[in-house]
Amino acid sequence: MLALRLLEKDNSHTDRIQLQDIKTPEPKENEVLIQMQTAALNRRDQWIREGLYPGIRPATLGSDGCGIVVKTGKNAEKWESKTVIINPNNNWGDDERHQSADYHILGMPTDGTFAEFLCVNQDRLVLKPKSLSLEEAAALPLAGLTAFRSAFYHGGIQKGSKVLISGAGGGVAQFAFQFAVAAGAKVFVTSGDDEKLERLEEMGAAGIVNYKDPDWNKQLKDKAGSFDCAIDSAGGETFAEIIKLLGRSGRIVFYGATLGLPQKIDLYRMFFNQIRIQGSTMGSDKEFVEMVNFVEKHKIKPIIGSITPFSDIISAFDTMKDGEGFGKLVVSMR
Amino acid sequence: MLALRLLEKDNSHTDRIQLQDIKTPEPKENEVLIQMQTAALNRRDQWIREGLYPGIRPATLGSDGCGIVVKTGKNAEKWESKTVIINPNNNWGDDERHQSADYHILGMPTDGTFAEFLCVNQDRLVLKPKSLSLEEAAALPLAGLTAFRSAFYHGGIQKGSKVLISGAGGGVAQFAFQFAVAAGAKVFVTSGDDEKLERLEEMGAAGIVNYKDPDWNKQLKDKAGSFDCAIDSAGGETFAEIIKLLGRSGRIVFYGATLGLPQKIDLYRMFFNQIRIQGSTMGSDKEFVEMVNFVEKHKIKPIIGSITPFSDIISAFDTMKDGEGFGKLVVSMR
Repeated sequence: MLALRLLEKDNSHTDRIQLQDIKTPEPKENEVLIQMQTAALNRRDQWIREGLYPGIRPATLGSDGCGIVVKTGKNAEKWESKTVIINPNNNWGDDERHQSADYHILGMPTDGTFAEFLCVNQDRLVLKPKSLSLEEAAALPLAGLTAFRSAFYHGGIQKGSKVLISGAGGGVAQFAFQFAVAAGAKVFVTSGDDEKLERLEEMGAAGIVNYKDPDWNKQLKDKAGSFDCAIDSAGGETFAEIIKLLGRSGRIVFYGATLGLPQKIDLYRMFFNQIRIQGSTMGSDKEFVEMVNFVEKHKIKPIIGSITPFSDIISAFDTMKDGEGFGKLVVSMR
Repeated sequence: MLALRLLEKDNSHTDRIQLQDIKTPEPKENEVLIQMQTAALNRRDQWIREGLYPGIRPATLGSDGCGIVVKTGKNAEKWESKTVIINPNNNWGDDERHQSADYHILGMPTDGTFAEFLCVNQDRLVLKPKSLSLEEAAALPLAGLTAFRSAFYHGGIQKGSKVLISGAGGGVAQFAFQFAVAAGAKVFVTSGDDEKLERLEEMGAAGIVNYKDPDWNKQLKDKAGSFDCAIDSAGGETFAEIIKLLGRSGRIVFYGATLGLPQKIDLYRMFFNQIRIQGSTMGSDKEFVEMVNFVEKHKIKPIIGSITPFSDIISAFDTMKDGEGFGKLVVSMR
């Protein structure tokens, strides 16, 4: 079968990812063999390609995917012929508050979704909701889970909450935006791209602001007053400014910090207003199931940026490297 | 009656606080007149004296106190002759998460506890626990409430939690220490004063570290591994170091920032480990009652630094200004 492999680092190849013909795996007890139909890229995949991830070793990449069960190991027979989404968590553990020490994400170190076939334990499977196409289903797992935990478990977003999603054009941020809107929150967004902002407004944003405007923070204050919750993945100097936009017992939840470490956070304002800064990553297995149910219930359609044939997957990585467009980069094995 | 008044700022006096003979107030409907027995100082009082507090205007100072009800207004008769602690909150409001916009603390703008008599609404009264002396009861309100919310509502401290109290010689920190120990947590403390550290060890600290040691953070790591919760009021550079000592889903709760704003908080470590930074101030009316009950149930004895006659209260302010000793500065009207 064809699989996108991360190679050993030995300086003999200029690119560490390569499509290779490898042996199709066999499902063991409690495992299923999935014929992958679709998969999707995350920044994580490109970071691994660039060597910017801890514990890198050869593996088939890919955390997101959707496929059809074509063979089952002992005790997994009930999944035969089902169309499934794969939970990318491995070993989250029993504590809802955080992942265990053995936690890892599907697709390095264990073999992932960028392959024609994949074997996983049946406890990683969730039936694909009928409301989603195969492409939409593949777009969901990693980014959807991260957004779901940020928005609800940590963010406490509910009907009527005033929410700020910064950099709302990004993969996780789009889901956070869609989830918060579906929950009945009043959602304001920032992006550096006016076209993305217009799209988000059409999708239900209560207010849009281009963060390249020097007075972006004042614009948000004028539009919203103050926020109950902000969701961010940029960090940097804007982080401290967003904290100033939070009302009493406001929260900023973040799952990334692409602009680096923030300087001079105003602790005085924070303690007087009982403000919280909350780090978040991925989500529990329980949340994964809840997230898929939420998407089905609210008929949420993941935003697809492009669909690339699996044979051309490296070009999708290059697109990711060049800067994200609007919507998930999906690859199709069909 | 004698009361410690904050004067108008008019440059005619070198000190803005002065003992003055003023009219004894009369209890209105739902109010009681309390003959104050004891009161206690907080940093807030000295900050107000120095003009370092927002919205300063003439008033009788003092947030902490204990006294005997000597006269009751209509509908407040049941408090007659009771010995009571006064809840220093005014207008916390209905939301447990944060204080209302009208919130203020007893003792500027409204007249406070540094007086021979005080009128308050009966809904501010809690019976003095029998386990506390009049002096211990006066030491409790503001610092105890702040510590209680930090430790439990925000800190989530429970039996078995590994807790760090930094600057544990301070007024609020001492209560946080005592509450966490009483709750069955394993409590580690830092202070810049070895004598205070020894006292805290006698009182049940699981480990003590002098923060003036250059390797204080390494010492804590060696002793505790990682912490579930840290309670801090210093901020500054140590804040970022304390965050590094937190384990997964660890929390740092802070109610002050005497060393100023922190630089370069490690957001990467925070989101991967689902770490929380939580600001906290004071506590709700519900928490005030819970706190007094907790103190009675666990036979917690507030630490008294000194007891000064009320006539000499300005010297207690000077002691506060010079740097806190170990234990609360109590004044006695008896």
